[in-house]
Amino acid sequence: MVQINDNYLKLQAGYLFPEISRRVREFQKENPQADIIKMGIGDVTLPLTPTVIRAFHEGVVEMSKAETFKGYGPEQGYGFLREAIAKSEYQSRGADIHADEIFISDGSKCDTGNILEIFGPDNIIAVQDPVYPVYVDTIVMAGRTGGYQPNGHFEGLIYMPCTAENDFIPEIPKTAVDIVFLCYPNNPTGTTASKQELKKWVDYARRNNTIILFDAAYEAYIADSDIPHTIYEIDGAKEVAIEFRSLSKTAGFTGTRCAYTIIPKDLVASASDGNKKSLHSLWFRRHTTKFNGVSYPVQKAAAAIFTPEGKEEVKTSIGYYMNNAKTLRENLTELGFQVFGGKNAPYVWVNSGRGIKSWDLFDKLLNEAHVVGTPGSGFGPSGEGYFRFSSFATHENVLKSIERMKSLKW
Amino acid sequence: MVQINDNYLKLQAGYLFPEISRRVREFQKENPQADIIKMGIGDVTLPLTPTVIRAFHEGVVEMSKAETFKGYGPEQGYGFLREAIAKSEYQSRGADIHADEIFISDGSKCDTGNILEIFGPDNIIAVQDPVYPVYVDTIVMAGRTGGYQPNGHFEGLIYMPCTAENDFIPEIPKTAVDIVFLCYPNNPTGTTASKQELKKWVDYARRNNTIILFDAAYEAYIADSDIPHTIYEIDGAKEVAIEFRSLSKTAGFTGTRCAYTIIPKDLVASASDGNKKSLHSLWFRRHTTKFNGVSYPVQKAAAAIFTPEGKEEVKTSIGYYMNNAKTLRENLTELGFQVFGGKNAPYVWVNSGRGIKSWDLFDKLLNEAHVVGTPGSGFGPSGEGYFRFSSFATHENVLKSIERMKSLKW
Repeated sequence: MVQINDNYLKLQAGYLFPEISRRVREFQKENPQADIIKMGIGDVTLPLTPTVIRAFHEGVVEMSKAETFKGYGPEQGYGFLREAIAKSEYQSRGADIHADEIFISDGSKCDTGNILEIFGPDNIIAVQDPVYPVYVDTIVMAGRTGGYQPNGHFEGLIYMPCTAENDFIPEIPKTAVDIVFLCYPNNPTGTTASKQELKKWVDYARRNNTIILFDAAYEAYIADSDIPHTIYEIDGAKEVAIEFRSLSKTAGFTGTRCAYTIIPKDLVASASDGNKKSLHSLWFRRHTTKFNGVSYPVQKAAAAIFTPEGKEEVKTSIGYYMNNAKTLRENLTELGFQVFGGKNAPYVWVNSGRGIKSWDLFDKLLNEAHVVGTPGSGFGPSGEGYFRFSSFATHENVLKSIERMKSLKW
Repeated sequence: MVQINDNYLKLQAGYLFPEISRRVREFQKENPQADIIKMGIGDVTLPLTPTVIRAFHEGVVEMSKAETFKGYGPEQGYGFLREAIAKSEYQSRGADIHADEIFISDGSKCDTGNILEIFGPDNIIAVQDPVYPVYVDTIVMAGRTGGYQPNGHFEGLIYMPCTAENDFIPEIPKTAVDIVFLCYPNNPTGTTASKQELKKWVDYARRNNTIILFDAAYEAYIADSDIPHTIYEIDGAKEVAIEFRSLSKTAGFTGTRCAYTIIPKDLVASASDGNKKSLHSLWFRRHTTKFNGVSYPVQKAAAAIFTPEGKEEVKTSIGYYMNNAKTLRENLTELGFQVFGGKNAPYVWVNSGRGIKSWDLFDKLLNEAHVVGTPGSGFGPSGEGYFRFSSFATHENVLKSIERMKSLKW
């Protein structure tokens, strides 16, 4: 008799974003006239830029002719794309990362979940709280936790609270943790980590033989010059960290799909016999066995982002979204909200300052202002009372949503 | 101290295709003038067809304008593509499969590996031998076997030999198996299963509560009208089978990336408390949590395959490859080889009839004829002595390779 993976039964209700979609759909059905403004799921609204589009078309043209047609490519991604990333994103910042340490994939969501496959089942894992729900859900599905507890935590998983009380900077664990997920600029809080802060983590990881899974999907939104864009700007990080990067928010690739993961060749972990094994080799085996590479025209389009023209265009798009973030910050502050993030990240993290619970604020905004945000408690118990606005909407919609929120009774 | 997944250490040497690439690379390095003809890895050579290219460009154009830009799509795939597949590939054959039972993905290789995640660790799994190596490698990586044994099998995995002696038809297991991988038309042997044969499997699965993982990546190559294209042509299959389909070989998408998996809503398996759970729901949770959908322009391009023009074009491409298969079959027979497959599948499976081992034949053909095929033993111990030719080369290269092989001393 075939058996299911029972770990799936531990998962709580729906994944956050499907649950939001469900409530929005239901509301829309009952209120077909309502003009709903969506600032919930972090999805971009600006189209792909001209340089990217040009390269994308060129890639398609190559697929139309026998002489330039591309069948299976290298699973790890084409050299032209990996070289461009190594140079533009790492070597230019003094981070000694090479093309063969880069794995191109179709999404960071996939990578941050799949990466667990190369690690043993008994590693102790820590996450920030609030946290991008995919980390926790995939950890649970893979059977690396016990059951769900009344306090909103899964047994066996270590949660590091990040709230206004500690400036959203998690405390370094007092005990040894084997794997720690860090996300900077942070989703959902929009806060960042300084070099000193990251150095503490790298030092901790080196002392304890910990692997840091560093999610830098939002690094392109960093404006302040002293905030590191990659963890490899920190000395010694190449011995302890895997970094995830995405083109989704960087260049509007949420529907085009391309991301990359850095696994330095220096990284090792222990087999059960005590021998050290290369994590690069293990992931290479995983990636080549279970993945067939990203669509060739998409890789062509992706490479265009790292040309001088592509970079300028990306900067303009990001400037547009960050202007939204500024508008949200200023007006929500005026509304009496406590406001965090939104300076080096596209997310504005707020607390109503009126003791309203996250899902109650969600329902209030949906029902009364037809505005959709993301309830902070959906990201973990330490997110209760908070609420996330994404700045990826159009500027008109941001202004309209503010107008509506200001007109509500608070 | 962070620990690796020790199961990776059980894997034998390289995955078959990287090992072939390594030997070819080495030979090419020492013989830079050699004109090597590659019929090893099953990669297509014909470009994408005009109808597909047109739709692909249209998809890219949509991504260039704010009004038509697509961000995150449904993880399961766009309705327009799922509807087209349900109608064209299933309902037209009397198989009652609906759009919401179809999951679009970026590859069958990914899906056949990832599907194991929704099943418990203690299920007994059976595979054909020879077998597509990805099934076995991913089963091993996921810790569902013991160690590698001297007979070339992994402990705990059930192998069903398919050789000339049993007409490449595996015997139905005498004991209860929980999950069985079946691939038809078969990779690597190029053989097919009749309706009666598949009915035996469906009946077995219904009796034993077994799930059949049915890989139909090569169904488009079926020429004989009495061979089923989908397992859902068999009554009752919706209660026991998951089907994998790919556009890679169907429409030259190896470098474009699009596939789909059917999980009927009727399918259930047991939780450890004995309750039946929907496999569709579990995979839906997995797919939406760990995957972000296929690139929008790729889905646009994929949908074009199912239009009348697209179908005609696909038929022409497949006719080209099947003419190669015929040429290979005839000439290799003339050469004194025993020849199988290649009638309803792009693979021609041969035995030299001279007692030559698979890798020895590989080296002989590479060194003396500069022709690359795939050693049968790379697919499992029952493939020893066999050799796979793929018909995806250009016709000129097929003719050239035959000429060279005929000129060798045998």
